[in-house]
Amino acid sequence: MAKKRQRRERGRERDDQDGPERLYGKHAVKAVLLTRPKDIERLVLAGKEEYHDDIIELAHRHNVDAFMTSWPEFTKAGKFEEQDKHQGVMAFVKARTVYSPHDFDRLEKAKCVVMLDQVSNPQNFATILRSAAFFRADAVMYMRNRSATPTPEVARFAVGGAELVDLYCVTNVAQAINQLIDIGFHVVGLDERGERTLAELDMSQKTCFIVGAEGEGLRPKTREHCSELVRIPGGRKGLESLNAAVATTIALYEFGRLG
Amino acid sequence: MAKKRQRRERGRERDDQDGPERLYGKHAVKAVLLTRPKDIERLVLAGKEEYHDDIIELAHRHNVDAFMTSWPEFTKAGKFEEQDKHQGVMAFVKARTVYSPHDFDRLEKAKCVVMLDQVSNPQNFATILRSAAFFRADAVMYMRNRSATPTPEVARFAVGGAELVDLYCVTNVAQAINQLIDIGFHVVGLDERGERTLAELDMSQKTCFIVGAEGEGLRPKTREHCSELVRIPGGRKGLESLNAAVATTIALYEFGRLG
Repeated sequence: MAKKRQRRERGRERDDQDGPERLYGKHAVKAVLLTRPKDIERLVLAGKEEYHDDIIELAHRHNVDAFMTSWPEFTKAGKFEEQDKHQGVMAFVKARTVYSPHDFDRLEKAKCVVMLDQVSNPQNFATILRSAAFFRADAVMYMRNRSATPTPEVARFAVGGAELVDLYCVTNVAQAINQLIDIGFHVVGLDERGERTLAELDMSQKTCFIVGAEGEGLRPKTREHCSELVRIPGGRKGLESLNAAVATTIALYEFGRLG
Repeated sequence: MAKKRQRRERGRERDDQDGPERLYGKHAVKAVLLTRPKDIERLVLAGKEEYHDDIIELAHRHNVDAFMTSWPEFTKAGKFEEQDKHQGVMAFVKARTVYSPHDFDRLEKAKCVVMLDQVSNPQNFATILRSAAFFRADAVMYMRNRSATPTPEVARFAVGGAELVDLYCVTNVAQAINQLIDIGFHVVGLDERGERTLAELDMSQKTCFIVGAEGEGLRPKTREHCSELVRIPGGRKGLESLNAAVATTIALYEFGRLG
């Protein structure tokens, strides 16, 4: 737990750094090769070369050198701990751009974005990035504080999703909501108190879905600022809500189906 | 990692034991109080009593005694490690019934069940249980081997879901599929190769959704035995699939909407 917290801190600090970031895991590194190969400073592989055929071929196509190394060298160079599932694939990569509300003019043609109100579980954050990439959401916005941030661990678990969707880091959710409404977004909070169901929502508008923390849901102040609350029908005594990543994905699925 | 594996083994052994199981976490224990209070052998709470008002009230209503204890006693009695998020709530509970394909006659009136083909990530398994309970699926079936099993850790993360849905443990998925077809189930594999989309599926029939492992999807042999494959539209180069728990939940959501 202490270790996890420490990692998150490290992730947070990245915003102010320009040094390369160590990404790992086959899918996470593949996604960088597909989206921004020029940002790769060094690609390192360990294990049997045949196992990495697809990565090597992709690297070659984008003029990136792939260095094969021994397992001990690999573990040392990546400062890996036993539980890191690196699959023998690691890349030192220029830290990617994380946008802020100052960049909201980039969303002029956006149709669907997701904003996370204190989602703190890294695995949930990663799953949301993966789903957002799968359903081609235009952006995922996360809070600067008390939230999971896009660390290498999250990128690994998002199996490429973290590279395939624009990221925005937000300090004040209420303020960001107002700005999104100003530029034409319908801001929809997922909340069991919603009058309409998700399927009844008019999805012809630009939509921002807001999802709350595991356990607590949307904070009262966030709820107040939403244009509307919608609920996902279901639940029973003893189990009133869905996992945050799951609820977000259902919203993105419905947007893809109806929007 | 080694620790996790060991825990899973312990969970597996439970099938053959009759001793009490130590469940923990507020929601997991609450769900037992709601569904089978008579199975609780001992309910132990630590921390401020006011914090546990709702559990104590629920226990009282079901004639279960709640014992308050100190944090050190609590940690010792539960053999907790630092990372276990017990929230000061633990119960020693008679291990719940896990059914097998011999019990498929229980599914006579069932409408929707989920079968997991080697889903091995405990957090994904827990999320599936939670979603299945939320959408009132009749059962979740998991494999005896190479799969996550309903350990106390999974129950905690399922926030009550593990108690609110019938569980079946299956040794041979292909055989179980055939049995389900024999008793009238339409067996639908979630697979990106599906011709129809999930939304196009006829959900008026009794349906069993089958979901494959993280990364690999359905095994070829499982795929062959399905009545039909359906896909969830989406995906892109570098990110072809959704998380297994997320895909399962979308299927359950659609079944609730259309079925």
